Parts: sequence; C-alpha cells; structure tokens
Amino acid sequence: MTEDIPEKLALRRDKLRDALIAAAEDAVTTRGLSGLKARDLAAAAGCALGAIYNVFDDLDELVLRVNQRTLAMLERALNAGEAAADPAQELLRLARAYLAFARREEKRWRALFEHRLPPARDPPGWYVVDLDRLFGRLEAPLAHLLPKAEPAARAQLARTLFSAVHGVVTLGMEEKLAPTPAATLNAQLDGFVGMIAAGLAPRKT
Amino acid sequence: MTEDIPEKLALRRDKLRDALIAAAEDAVTTRGLSGLKARDLAAAAGCALGAIYNVFDDLDELVLRVNQRTLAMLERALNAGEAAADPAQELLRLARAYLAFARREEKRWRALFEHRLPPARDPPGWYVVDLDRLFGRLEAPLAHLLPKAEPAARAQLARTLFSAVHGVVTLGMEEKLAPTPAATLNAQLDGFVGMIAAGLAPRKT
Repeated sequence: MTEDIPEKLALRRDKLRDALIAAAEDAVTTRGLSGLKARDLAAAAGCALGAIYNVFDDLDELVLRVNQRTLAMLERALNAGEAAADPAQELLRLARAYLAFARREEKRWRALFEHRLPPARDPPGWYVVDLDRLFGRLEAPLAHLLPKAEPAARAQLARTLFSAVHGVVTLGMEEKLAPTPAATLNAQLDGFVGMIAAGLAPRKT
Repeated sequence: MTEDIPEKLALRRDKLRDALIAAAEDAVTTRGLSGLKARDLAAAAGCALGAIYNVFDDLDELVLRVNQRTLAMLERALNAGEAAADPAQELLRLARAYLAFARREEKRWRALFEHRLPPARDPPGWYVVDLDRLFGRLEAPLAHLLPKAEPAARAQLARTLFSAVHGVVTLGMEEKLAPTPAATLNAQLDGFVGMIAAGLAPRKT
C-alpha cells in the first residue's frame, strides 16, 4: 500500500503537467504568447497558482514545452509532402511548406521566435535535440548540393539558410518593408530559394 | 498681437512634440519598446497624459517617429564606409555594416521590427518615404549585378535580400538555432552574402 503512494503522486504530477501544457498551448494558439498568464493557466488546469512551479521549473519551461509541440508539428508539415529528388526542388518544397505552416499556425509559429530565455540561460537539452532533428531535415538536400562539405559546415549552412528564409517569410507576412500580398510573398520566396540553389550549385566554368 | 497667438501655440506644440519624441527615444534605447509607457513620457516631457494625444495621433505615431530616427541613423551607418566598386563587395560591406549597427544599437534596432501597427493600418507616408530611400541604398549594387532587371523587380529583390540578411542577423544574435558567438555570426553572414552574390552573378556556362 505505501509503495503505491509515490506512484500515485507521480501520476497526478504527470496529469497536472499535461493539463498545464494543454492550457498554455490553448492560450498561445488563441491569444499568442503575450496572452499567456500563469493565473489563467492555473484556473484552466484547476490547480493553485503555486502548483505550476511544483511541476515546471518556471513559465519559460512551460512555454518551451508548447514550442516543442510546435516544432513537432512543423516537422510533420515538412515531412507531409513527398521529398523531391532534385535538391534545388527539395529546398523549394521545404521553404514553401515552411511558409504554409507559418500562415496556418501563425500564433504558435510566432511564439517559437517571440519567446526568449533570460540572457546566458541555454535552452534545455530536450529542446535542442528536437531542434537539431528538425534541421537534419534541411541538411539532406544540402548534402546532395555540397557532397564535399564537412558535416559541421553543412549543419551551420542549414541554420543560415533557414534564418534567411525565415527573414523573408516573417518580414513578408508582417509587410514590414512594403505591401506584400500573399502571391507576391510566394513569388519572392520561390525566387529567393532558386537564387540560393543557383549560388550553391557547382559552377560549370 | 492677436496674430502672434497661433504662432506661439504652434511653437509650443512643436516643442512638446520634440520633447515627447526625445523621451520616447530615451525609453526605447534604454528599456526597449516594451518599456515605453505613455505615463512616463508625459512625466518626462512635463505635460498631462492627455496632451500626448493633442500632438500625436496615438502612441503608434510616436513610436514610428522614434523608428524614423533609427532609420536615419542606420542610413548614416550604411553610408559611413566607402562604397566598394565591386558590387559583390559592396553587398558584403552593407551587410556587415547592418550587423554592426544591430549590435551597437540593439534596443532601437529591435524596436523597428517589434513595433507593429494594428492590422489593416498602413504606415504613414513620411515613414514609407524614408524606408524607400534606405532601400535605394541597396538597389545600387544590385543594378550593377543585374543591369537588365526592371526597377520594380530590383526594388523587390533589395527587400527580399534585406529580409534574408535580417533573418541571419536576428536569429544569430538571439542564438535561436544554435550557440552563435560573434565570430561565428560574422563568418555566417560573410558566407551567406557571398553565396547570394554568386547566385546573382551572370553564369559563364
């Protein structure tokens, strides 16, 4: 009998964690990251405010758990279409899938980038593992384009290219620099990825 | 005598506007955009809270006035170095100057992108004129690389390339995707701009 108690406690703990992550996910997807308030989450999960900090280190951990789910959704979205055999076409397919995901899941996608850890605090290992796996997805077509590149250089290039595509997607969606209707942004992104693939392809000089 | 009154009022109005812009600029550069509070600005400018709305349409206009000053600073920073004759070198020089500006003026630089107008509200003409002039700076080396491109296509390409460079700079500075020491980000940006210039240069096939 006494042996069951820690197990029951652990179960209750897990249930509370899940309920709080679900409540946080709901807040982020409906109101955005700035709409996430600890008090509301506790109310939605039916616990005291302080109980949040019994099952999470802090609100940052809770947000990162939601963002981890978003990374998983993004990974599924990138894997949904069939990979193109031509690496330039595959980069284009991935970039288009990224833009489509950002449009479809705008609030939770924004939360990935709006959330910032305090300075000098590293993201936890479980988050980094998922992030790195996602980037592995981008490294495959780069391996075809640059067969001689070192894996570390390729990993970094994948992050650079993602950042560039992300810049085009985010400033385009916000129409920060000029009015950018959806069709214009689509064309901009296609042209940009084509240019990148051309810049990477071996030159026939 | 009576004719002087409107003039005096206009002068006082201008003084108050300047004082409020200066207070807002101070708040943005020290605490960031999220640290800007109307009450503090009124206190700093020595006016009633409601007086802000006699001289500005709303807080958005006041933020855009601060951002306009940031655009002017950025323009001066891009013009500070000597333009390189080679267009690929010139793109590299501009990208490096952009990264240096973002590092040096991080808070006011962030405010350019963190501030968002309500949906369906266009930025005012005086802001757009300054933004377009800044992009003209980027179009010059593109005109050398792509002499046959239509001006509208070149204007759009300048915005696409800026967005891409901005993505690399911002995600790199935030170390969003991987630990990114300053030297790594410098190398990443150089490699990226080199790739872009190679992708744009006419192919000798």
